Amino acid sequence: MEKVNLARKYSLFDEYWSPKIIGELNGQVVKIAKLKGEFLWHHHEAEDEFFMVIQGQMVIKLPDQDVSLEAGEFFIVPRGVEHKPVAEEEAHVLMFEPESTLNTGNVQSERTVENPKTI
Amino acid sequence: MEKVNLARKYSLFDEYWSPKIIGELNGQVVKIAKLKGEFLWHHHEAEDEFFMVIQGQMVIKLPDQDVSLEAGEFFIVPRGVEHKPVAEEEAHVLMFEPESTLNTGNVQSERTVENPKTI
Repeated sequence: MEKVNLARKYSLFDEYWSPKIIGELNGQVVKIAKLKGEFLWHHHEAEDEFFMVIQGQMVIKLPDQDVSLEAGEFFIVPRGVEHKPVAEEEAHVLMFEPESTLNTGNVQSERTVENPKTI
Repeated sequence: MEKVNLARKYSLFDEYWSPKIIGELNGQVVKIAKLKGEFLWHHHEAEDEFFMVIQGQMVIKLPDQDVSLEAGEFFIVPRGVEHKPVAEEEAHVLMFEPESTLNTGNVQSERTVENPKTI
């Protein structure tokens, strides 16, 4: 049982769009990722997805709006809703989601990370 | 579907040890609380509990260690483990936990909040 320091965890990797698991509880995982550029449109059939910005800024594009998030802000993408994360500059985000959630949701692509590493 | 700004949510209440719900997803809730002083020893029979410090400092006392958390750090208290949150000065924390989690766990006291408000 050890505490987790977010800044230290972010310092352990450089890749963008490659979620890492940093905590597990109640069948859910806490993940972090570094974002830069545009991800792909996708949705999650059965999972709501929580995005909180820890550093930088991101935009979650939705079919009918763009949600801009800064550090200290979060947004929950409801299951089934198409979304596309975008970050003009490097952003550090924290996600909270079921263990089963795949980063690209319903879309299989070269950006899909099947088994995110625990760091 | 609206984004949530943590600082704004904390500005909406003053009470200590009175968790508020600020998000719901996958049967889990995102809660925030302001802490100051000592809480009571308790445990949660079937729920792991995530505490992240957003502002200030807190200590999670466990039977065999004290876990000190600053802003940007979190700790997951495993189910069944006795713990006692303490904050010398006001601290702002964020919790992730199942909807069913009661703030005082197995202990019924005047500090028990049966139905936390959504703000």
